[in-house]
Amino acid sequence: MAVVQKEKLMKFTQNVFLTYGVNKKDAFICADNLVLADMRGIPSHGVARLKRYVDGMNNGVILPLNKPEIVKETAVTANIDGKAGLGQIVGHFATSLAIKKAKQSGAGIVTVRNSNHYGIAGYYSQMILNENLLGISMTNSAPLVVPTFGREMVFGTNPISLTAPAKDRKPFFLDMATSVVPRGKLEVYNREGKPLPDGWAVDENGQVTTDPGKVLNNLLNRMGGGILPLGGEGELYSGYKGYGMAIFVDILSGVLSGGAYANLVNKSKNGKPAPANVSHFFMALDIENFVDLDTFTTNMTDLMNRLQNSDKATNQKHIFIHGEKEYVKHEKYEKEGIPLQDKVYDTLRSIAEQRKVNFDI
Amino acid sequence: MAVVQKEKLMKFTQNVFLTYGVNKKDAFICADNLVLADMRGIPSHGVARLKRYVDGMNNGVILPLNKPEIVKETAVTANIDGKAGLGQIVGHFATSLAIKKAKQSGAGIVTVRNSNHYGIAGYYSQMILNENLLGISMTNSAPLVVPTFGREMVFGTNPISLTAPAKDRKPFFLDMATSVVPRGKLEVYNREGKPLPDGWAVDENGQVTTDPGKVLNNLLNRMGGGILPLGGEGELYSGYKGYGMAIFVDILSGVLSGGAYANLVNKSKNGKPAPANVSHFFMALDIENFVDLDTFTTNMTDLMNRLQNSDKATNQKHIFIHGEKEYVKHEKYEKEGIPLQDKVYDTLRSIAEQRKVNFDI
Repeated sequence: MAVVQKEKLMKFTQNVFLTYGVNKKDAFICADNLVLADMRGIPSHGVARLKRYVDGMNNGVILPLNKPEIVKETAVTANIDGKAGLGQIVGHFATSLAIKKAKQSGAGIVTVRNSNHYGIAGYYSQMILNENLLGISMTNSAPLVVPTFGREMVFGTNPISLTAPAKDRKPFFLDMATSVVPRGKLEVYNREGKPLPDGWAVDENGQVTTDPGKVLNNLLNRMGGGILPLGGEGELYSGYKGYGMAIFVDILSGVLSGGAYANLVNKSKNGKPAPANVSHFFMALDIENFVDLDTFTTNMTDLMNRLQNSDKATNQKHIFIHGEKEYVKHEKYEKEGIPLQDKVYDTLRSIAEQRKVNFDI
Repeated sequence: MAVVQKEKLMKFTQNVFLTYGVNKKDAFICADNLVLADMRGIPSHGVARLKRYVDGMNNGVILPLNKPEIVKETAVTANIDGKAGLGQIVGHFATSLAIKKAKQSGAGIVTVRNSNHYGIAGYYSQMILNENLLGISMTNSAPLVVPTFGREMVFGTNPISLTAPAKDRKPFFLDMATSVVPRGKLEVYNREGKPLPDGWAVDENGQVTTDPGKVLNNLLNRMGGGILPLGGEGELYSGYKGYGMAIFVDILSGVLSGGAYANLVNKSKNGKPAPANVSHFFMALDIENFVDLDTFTTNMTDLMNRLQNSDKATNQKHIFIHGEKEYVKHEKYEKEGIPLQDKVYDTLRSIAEQRKVNFDI
């Protein structure tokens, strides 16, 4: 395990993007997005993923110099063609537009098609939160999740993020996949040789399996099976609700933008790397148009306090609020540095060699 | 089991509301809302609930002649005070306003505070769907659900509905509680003397229980425990995601409207019936501002077809789309009449006697 300082990791990551001709501001956004994920304890979406972006830029799936283009626009809405650019730059552009519209018109609703993986959904809802607006961010993603009663990966983990400001305490920060677990959790169980809990994943026949290696191999080779939606298998625990939320995200992102949806996302043709075709959805709301901001933030704090002060289950000491664990990690890593797995550290070093970037993290 | 004709049930239900001085159009809306739930096979929200509305009007919790009032308004947004009126009338008013704004400004986002139970969330998203717009409807509700690691009911089942038009097939129609199951499911298990599946509900200590009678008794007497959020107990199956979605709904409904939220909803004081204080959220989007309607509906149909044509799990023959089961019920009951449990039928008869309304259903 390596421990690295945030500033050094930021600088290095930014430098990698600069080698592709990305301008300083955009390279900063890409680095900021990845490093924020690490800072919040979501390493699956942190610099561990830099290799995939580098590969994408190398093989032409990501066209880092392309600028997003507004296809349709009103005072309140916009639809953007991401032009296969970097998802972070496209997402930042779209979110900035949603924020501008919310400030001018009360609401900003922006859809995006033809983008790439945009990192954590919460990066964009955090941008909206920074302006004291109510923020929503969603994206579809490469297929990993099977519908209820199915055995074919049709959906991505299609995350939803919602942020809302509060007074005298950390804001509410939800950022969740609509699948029961992310792929990363299966990888952890596989490394540790532990059986999966029933109801996380199904095999190539659509039957629940506890074998993480089998599921991961099937995912990789698209042999059938995949991760289950939130609520698990079948109808007993309402897996069709998680499946419904995955469609919800796909409609607002993929269908509303006129982009790719369901298993069209990231489907390769003729063995050639296909465009990722990821679609996003962003919404910013000016709270003041509904209720004054002071009332809203006071009530948000009261809501969260009331939750945390409610009676605990026996043997539980703490009821968590969404974002709370991430804030704790963020403060800790700010002081102590960010832990990186050796494998991730080595991969960053090899990227440095490949891109001829100074490696001093 | 009684079987009644839709028209007769509509007429009777409308007549009950008329006895309270509600005008014909509003009484129709209330009846239409309840009967639609029965037609779609959601009897928990159908005329079985008429007794609760009658009780509410009798004891002053529901003030059926009060008109909703717009508190704040822009071209895109509005916040409405429901004035403790009938939730259906308030909800219909708010949704009509959202539709009007969507047609004029591209989007209509309307919050409501100080309302009553508004029936199925899908009634309002259906209104939006009828205009070929994309529709969202959410509401908070009386506490039944415990947060992750808690043992106190803080949230309602806080449902979310999303509707989207399609071409040459039935539209997408999601209407789901964010709890793992509704209270009605526990009642069915209790009647049949069956143990609950692990992970539906917790007892007064916050521990998973399989005893439906105990949970229902605890709910009724607020002795602790309650229904679990989607994803179940603790963190293993990501119950904090269902818990997060419940907060998501509560923020957009209760906090954004400046109304009641969490366990303030429906909390009685000093033994007197308290105002229900329910809050709602509605959103209508003009699809044409993002992508042309024909592309959208064509792609919605393709998305749903692709889901249904994807490989089935062994022993499964059909992958369902949200709303599909309800459409089937609707067509069946249109032809054959609506089945009503004897107990519900008898309750309707006693309402007829109490309100001096002709009972010929």
